[in-house]
Amino acid sequence: MLRLTPPNNLKFIQATNLDVIYGGSEANVAVSLAQMGAEAGYVTRVPNNDLGKSALNELRKYGVDTGPSVFGGDRLGVYFLEMGAGSRGSKIIYDRANSGMASLQKGMIDWEKVFVGATWFHWSGITTAVSPSAADATLEAVLRAKKMGLTVSCDLNHRANLWQYGKHPNEIMPELLKNCDVMLGDGDTIDLYFNLKGADYAEVFDKTFKAFPNLTHIAMTARKAHNATHNTYKGFLHNGTTLFESKEYDIADILDRIGSGDAFMAGLIFQLFQKGAPQYSVEFATAAATLKHYVHGDYNLSSLSEVESLMKGNTGGRVSR
Amino acid sequence: MLRLTPPNNLKFIQATNLDVIYGGSEANVAVSLAQMGAEAGYVTRVPNNDLGKSALNELRKYGVDTGPSVFGGDRLGVYFLEMGAGSRGSKIIYDRANSGMASLQKGMIDWEKVFVGATWFHWSGITTAVSPSAADATLEAVLRAKKMGLTVSCDLNHRANLWQYGKHPNEIMPELLKNCDVMLGDGDTIDLYFNLKGADYAEVFDKTFKAFPNLTHIAMTARKAHNATHNTYKGFLHNGTTLFESKEYDIADILDRIGSGDAFMAGLIFQLFQKGAPQYSVEFATAAATLKHYVHGDYNLSSLSEVESLMKGNTGGRVSR
Amino acid sequence: MLRLTPPNNLKFIQATNLDVIYGGSEANVAVSLAQMGAEAGYVTRVPNNDLGKSALNELRKYGVDTGPSVFGGDRLGVYFLEMGAGSRGSKIIYDRANSGMASLQKGMIDWEKVFVGATWFHWSGITTAVSPSAADATLEAVLRAKKMGLTVSCDLNHRANLWQYGKHPNEIMPELLKNCDVMLGDGDTIDLYFNLKGADYAEVFDKTFKAFPNLTHIAMTARKAHNATHNTYKGFLHNGTTLFESKEYDIADILDRIGSGDAFMAGLIFQLFQKGAPQYSVEFATAAATLKHYVHGDYNLSSLSEVESLMKGNTGGRVSR
Amino acid sequence: MLRLTPPNNLKFIQATNLDVIYGGSEANVAVSLAQMGAEAGYVTRVPNNDLGKSALNELRKYGVDTGPSVFGGDRLGVYFLEMGAGSRGSKIIYDRANSGMASLQKGMIDWEKVFVGATWFHWSGITTAVSPSAADATLEAVLRAKKMGLTVSCDLNHRANLWQYGKHPNEIMPELLKNCDVMLGDGDTIDLYFNLKGADYAEVFDKTFKAFPNLTHIAMTARKAHNATHNTYKGFLHNGTTLFESKEYDIADILDRIGSGDAFMAGLIFQLFQKGAPQYSVEFATAAATLKHYVHGDYNLSSLSEVESLMKGNTGGRVSR
Amino acid sequence: MLRLTPPNNLKFIQATNLDVIYGGSEANVAVSLAQMGAEAGYVTRVPNNDLGKSALNELRKYGVDTGPSVFGGDRLGVYFLEMGAGSRGSKIIYDRANSGMASLQKGMIDWEKVFVGATWFHWSGITTAVSPSAADATLEAVLRAKKMGLTVSCDLNHRANLWQYGKHPNEIMPELLKNCDVMLGDGDTIDLYFNLKGADYAEVFDKTFKAFPNLTHIAMTARKAHNATHNTYKGFLHNGTTLFESKEYDIADILDRIGSGDAFMAGLIFQLFQKGAPQYSVEFATAAATLKHYVHGDYNLSSLSEVESLMKGNTGGRVSR
Amino acid sequence: MLRLTPPNNLKFIQATNLDVIYGGSEANVAVSLAQMGAEAGYVTRVPNNDLGKSALNELRKYGVDTGPSVFGGDRLGVYFLEMGAGSRGSKIIYDRANSGMASLQKGMIDWEKVFVGATWFHWSGITTAVSPSAADATLEAVLRAKKMGLTVSCDLNHRANLWQYGKHPNEIMPELLKNCDVMLGDGDTIDLYFNLKGADYAEVFDKTFKAFPNLTHIAMTARKAHNATHNTYKGFLHNGTTLFESKEYDIADILDRIGSGDAFMAGLIFQLFQKGAPQYSVEFATAAATLKHYVHGDYNLSSLSEVESLMKGNTGGRVSR
Repeated sequence: MLRLTPPNNLKFIQATNLDVIYGGSEANVAVSLAQMGAEAGYVTRVPNNDLGKSALNELRKYGVDTGPSVFGGDRLGVYFLEMGAGSRGSKIIYDRANSGMASLQKGMIDWEKVFVGATWFHWSGITTAVSPSAADATLEAVLRAKKMGLTVSCDLNHRANLWQYGKHPNEIMPELLKNCDVMLGDGDTIDLYFNLKGADYAEVFDKTFKAFPNLTHIAMTARKAHNATHNTYKGFLHNGTTLFESKEYDIADILDRIGSGDAFMAGLIFQLFQKGAPQYSVEFATAAATLKHYVHGDYNLSSLSEVESLMKGNTGGRVSR
Repeated sequence: MLRLTPPNNLKFIQATNLDVIYGGSEANVAVSLAQMGAEAGYVTRVPNNDLGKSALNELRKYGVDTGPSVFGGDRLGVYFLEMGAGSRGSKIIYDRANSGMASLQKGMIDWEKVFVGATWFHWSGITTAVSPSAADATLEAVLRAKKMGLTVSCDLNHRANLWQYGKHPNEIMPELLKNCDVMLGDGDTIDLYFNLKGADYAEVFDKTFKAFPNLTHIAMTARKAHNATHNTYKGFLHNGTTLFESKEYDIADILDRIGSGDAFMAGLIFQLFQKGAPQYSVEFATAAATLKHYVHGDYNLSSLSEVESLMKGNTGGRVSR
Repeated sequence: MLRLTPPNNLKFIQATNLDVIYGGSEANVAVSLAQMGAEAGYVTRVPNNDLGKSALNELRKYGVDTGPSVFGGDRLGVYFLEMGAGSRGSKIIYDRANSGMASLQKGMIDWEKVFVGATWFHWSGITTAVSPSAADATLEAVLRAKKMGLTVSCDLNHRANLWQYGKHPNEIMPELLKNCDVMLGDGDTIDLYFNLKGADYAEVFDKTFKAFPNLTHIAMTARKAHNATHNTYKGFLHNGTTLFESKEYDIADILDRIGSGDAFMAGLIFQLFQKGAPQYSVEFATAAATLKHYVHGDYNLSSLSEVESLMKGNTGGRVSR
Repeated sequence: MLRLTPPNNLKFIQATNLDVIYGGSEANVAVSLAQMGAEAGYVTRVPNNDLGKSALNELRKYGVDTGPSVFGGDRLGVYFLEMGAGSRGSKIIYDRANSGMASLQKGMIDWEKVFVGATWFHWSGITTAVSPSAADATLEAVLRAKKMGLTVSCDLNHRANLWQYGKHPNEIMPELLKNCDVMLGDGDTIDLYFNLKGADYAEVFDKTFKAFPNLTHIAMTARKAHNATHNTYKGFLHNGTTLFESKEYDIADILDRIGSGDAFMAGLIFQLFQKGAPQYSVEFATAAATLKHYVHGDYNLSSLSEVESLMKGNTGGRVSR
Repeated sequence: MLRLTPPNNLKFIQATNLDVIYGGSEANVAVSLAQMGAEAGYVTRVPNNDLGKSALNELRKYGVDTGPSVFGGDRLGVYFLEMGAGSRGSKIIYDRANSGMASLQKGMIDWEKVFVGATWFHWSGITTAVSPSAADATLEAVLRAKKMGLTVSCDLNHRANLWQYGKHPNEIMPELLKNCDVMLGDGDTIDLYFNLKGADYAEVFDKTFKAFPNLTHIAMTARKAHNATHNTYKGFLHNGTTLFESKEYDIADILDRIGSGDAFMAGLIFQLFQKGAPQYSVEFATAAATLKHYVHGDYNLSSLSEVESLMKGNTGGRVSR
Repeated sequence: MLRLTPPNNLKFIQATNLDVIYGGSEANVAVSLAQMGAEAGYVTRVPNNDLGKSALNELRKYGVDTGPSVFGGDRLGVYFLEMGAGSRGSKIIYDRANSGMASLQKGMIDWEKVFVGATWFHWSGITTAVSPSAADATLEAVLRAKKMGLTVSCDLNHRANLWQYGKHPNEIMPELLKNCDVMLGDGDTIDLYFNLKGADYAEVFDKTFKAFPNLTHIAMTARKAHNATHNTYKGFLHNGTTLFESKEYDIADILDRIGSGDAFMAGLIFQLFQKGAPQYSVEFATAAATLKHYVHGDYNLSSLSEVESLMKGNTGGRVSR
């Protein structure tokens, strides 16, 4: 997906040029994993033109294997992002209808071939929200992945202005979640997608584990926003037994918060894949997400050592000479 | 329509930012007329978001009345332009499906109200090429304009990759042309749209005047391209009796040739509206189109005095202090 | 007026290019009103060159009717702004002598024609400070406006380095204020302009209402500056009976504070024009001024809904998707 | 003087930022001399603010001694330059009234002190054109320079839109020229300033030598403009006996022609100061002026070896590795 | 290698920022091949820091496999490029001593592993010129490649300011050339490297084929420079039997000529690898090199279809819509 | 030294261009002194190419006399700076081996001539850390300076990744410090360089005064980093008798902290040179260092009045009109 952003916090109506970023939820996770040293591949469907190629080029640049992706469809999805500041919020104008991903259909990707040698498959609820055929293809992938023994993770990633195709998420998502191991999502989305309510998120998580016994982990992030450039942020991880909470970070002077959830997800996958301890895993994921706020663009381009350094409390932003 | 161009002749696959221009064939004509001092208004349909507003803002900035335009539709049409140089050609990626203009339908615009006080209506064949409903709405406008006594002009403006909606131009365009007074178009397009062939353009024009006796003027431009930055250019105007040719301009060191046909059209309307002599009119239109090559963006922002100065032979680019 | 600012907080002595903004106190008020949906026109006098035209173009872009403005004078006023940061203050170098506004004289503008159909006239004390003839023309306008039944508002807007033409403000301003309905100003300026002292601003306001019984409202803003990028801000409105105070905003991470007083003034006019309740009006004006700190340039380009959202307490700068 | 130019050949009405250059005729000559290795100083009067300081900083950066300059006056002169291209000419908007130089008066500069140790003084007809007091100060300087034995050169540099102060150049310039040794100027200007007409420039030069027997050299440059980005250029030098002509250069793909006359003047001074042969001197000056067309800004930043290399016929723009 | 270039043809002494390009002769060849659709890998040695990683990232972005490269050495080689224009030549300041490539030694790269599955190996004379150990490693690679049956090509690529390590090229290059199949080089370099003189290049080529009977092809390019932005260019290919010459291209309005020899080399390899006919091969390589002049940076980012289109005579730079 | 920084807080791996700054510890001190009004000269050794010249040009621009510097050596030292933000730290990649300064040797600079008329000499421990010959030349300079009666100051300026040439700082620095009057350094560095340990810095300073009775003043700065954009900062000055502490500044919204120690050093020299009172001197130096955080680049370009204003408590960053 192509992200177009007026530079320097200008408003859309002031912009005479737009910064180009190629991102998207799963792509962001893949880049983040690759930057930390994992072998990451990415499957998408982009139009066979210079914009589609540029999107793949950008992922390859940051170490992601784009070999499994296919060309097709009429256009690359676009989103326009106006970056807010202080008490002026950010704005997003989505223009992703009819993208290569939206017109993706079952059978277009040979998932069996894609998954050879792979151990983990991650997908986002945004993909299932763009079109029924994309949701079908996602289910196709998830089923194949489970069959081939991969761990499957998902980020519920609710976007209110998607899901415009006449089906409610709870007609689509439960079948998918039945085949997942790790889920990232908050209480409101769990309620919306799965009709699981609770007095608080702890209760919601308990109900989710009961409803989906296949799940091994549920994670969540919590952000409080003082204003657009000053937030606090913390992460949660429930391993079916215990709920672990990370340190809460004070995130002032934010450069770009887009993609912080994906940075968290990547951090979590990076640790769970290595059987990291739950407390360490959620601390790691939260530190990664925190660093993302200080990197322009959708990707968390922080290295493993940068994440580990922040976890150790090196918040002081000292100069490494 | 939003035009996005990598700066400084970069290729799409190199670009990290894109220059923003709001243009489109009829919009370009309107701005050009306003810059030369005419009262010009513009009717379009843009989405009710900050991109749609920015498109109208830009026209208003350059003196065009956007009062008659309406908000509607899901997205603003976009085109990506890679500016070539030398023997490297330019590339355009159109992304205009489902724009506010493509989903325009008869009845959405109150043409009677729009045309009160107006004396001239101009439309482009691009609009009729984007969707059948837009073609219907164009015909609606043309018929109303003729009924109210306006002069109607059109630019055939053939784009091979449009007309994707299952109808051939010659099912659509003849009915429209029957209600026009002034037409800009070349022999190949006339053949494609109206099935009128000839040994040369003179013969084609004769046949066109016979087939469409309502026409008072047919105009054409001829470009020879040495390379992407060096062209020659001249204009033609037939008033039903005689074919007038302009001086041929040597156009080296081109900055941006997009919109030069629209600059020609605007120059022609500007003169014909004032009953300019045919030779003067075609010279004026051609000089205007020539200057457009030296203005970044889609619009010819040259003033009346700049066009007149070039017509007088001041090609030397001297410094006006 | 042309504002020239080194980008990116560079100092004047570092700058190799300057950002172009066209602004000025009354222009800023007009744009702000237009962005919130009001019909706003602007009367000025600019030189008949491309800089003067650009200044008007920019206003028209943002929806202001520049029809009543006239061309004249030798130059466009310029001010150079160096944007500070943290404990480094901002600097302004004014270069506005001999501008079209400074050489404005009585009789140059046909105020009677300008005011046809209008209901409100706003002027700034900066205009009266640039030259005696501009002060005369302001009085001419104010008298005509009152005669034609318009509400008249003014912003005292004291600038110490103006008023260089040999007259003290208190020789000029009282006669003008006698014909105003709404005044924005602080205690120090009221003392300087009208010789009205008080123990605090409440007392000064009381005395002002007594001295100028024509006034219906007096407003004031109060800023505390932690540093150049972190202020607090609140507004006051006295309706002759009661003094209303707005919520105080904590404004961190400021992008550009220039024009915040004009944003307040526009918010106030927008509400008073609609007979908004005093408490609501001052809250609205203060929220508008707060948002201005997060918009580059002189204009508050915030929409009505953005202002209303902030008033409701949505300070969190969330991402509107 | 501050030059402000829209980048990338944009028109004034398109510009959102302006490139900053500090220049001016005599300043350009001084920088050019310093870059070629001469010891050059510069005397001006600039306002005591950050713009005045920046102007001097820029000269010092390029090796010019600004010690003799003084601070004073209300503003720095400004000129806005719109860079044309092809058949679109460049435009200049001067805004130099009331600058520190325009308000310069006799006695403000201690010329005797300035000239200690100096051997050459150069002035431009632009200075005498801005105000009568600046003309007076120029005469004061010229007389003092002659008295102290310096060689004096001038560039007539006619600008039609200056000389607005009620005196005709021929009331001012003859007295000045009587005290000069070297003059750069063309036939039309010589006629205007000194009432010396001739059938061609050769005859005009002869008459000038007769009318001003103090002159040792008269120089001239001749430009033919194919368009704004393609000129031809040659130089002439008459030493009272013989008229020497340089090679004519074909100057295509021009980056910035402003200051080419000053580059010629500097090249001429550089050679005449060293008693260079007339043919060599005019070839050198013309090569220097040619190179200026390929340097952005007002200054010719070419080194001595670059000029000498072009003189030897190395026009091929090869890559020096 | 990191290339740093002042933008917009500024001189080094004017630059306040530098454009970043990662290139180098063999890297340019690899990217060019990948863009045309070939599978290309790249072997280098870069420091293990963010600059070294960025260099590899950039290659991967454009489709080159960087897997065989290794990390090591103290610094990344840098070259500063000042882009000339017109009769102002370009300048290069090399700063490549002690780079990872310069300190490369035999044994650091496992060439046997690198060449598994490969069919062609290309190297440049620049590598052998930077240090004796790099020359040793090149010979090591060439011998291994021949042993494993790869075709070996080289570009003599003479740079006068390299070869500073106390050996003359003719002590190094003959042994290397004995193991090559395809050579790109001009007569002067052949003379310098191999002591082979001739009346013209045809004779030199004949002698080279005799001295190095292993060679199957010798190629050469010939550039004539009208000025820095206007050249002509043609290519030659001798297959041991016949000398084939390409069409000569008129290359005006050059954007960036750096890397055109590498573009030629890549075009040649692309064709010879497919057993292209000699005439077709040299035409293809020359068209590719021509297009490179219109792409910013070191790489020829033209696609196969762009090269083929130019070969067919489409020099007109038309707009592909 | 050339500093290259990705703009806008981009990471190295994202940068497509780099901002150019010429700095270095002693250079920064010299510029800072010149901006406050002192006469400052600078002695360095830079390569005789356009980069070396640009480094000197930049210093001259800001008022530093570069007359005593010499040309020599193969390259200009470079450092790449990635500017962090929030909890993401900054990174520096040094590339200064083999610079003109690193290859400086005794006898290359005629210190006796350099010091004629001078009263103060300042040097940095960075210079002694780059190479043994540079350390020798520093000692040569210090001894000559003392002999000629100059006050000598030094900034210990420890950089862990320098001192790579096989000697420990304590083999080099004691001899140098014996000839200094004023030293800036913290406890850890004093321990490392001179083997002087203490319970706290007060005790360390006491021991240092005892070990080096020649010292008249020891200064230190203390920074606490909340994150990369928010620090606190204070200064200390011991005059052999008493330890004076400055106010502690809260430095939020930092633009660029590089060079703040040099700004402190310059402020200290500026005051000590004038026999400023110790408390005033340390307050002045600390205020200067604070302002540096709000100036892009290595130099503190604040004026004397800006520093004095901050000392008086004007932290509010008000707009000076």
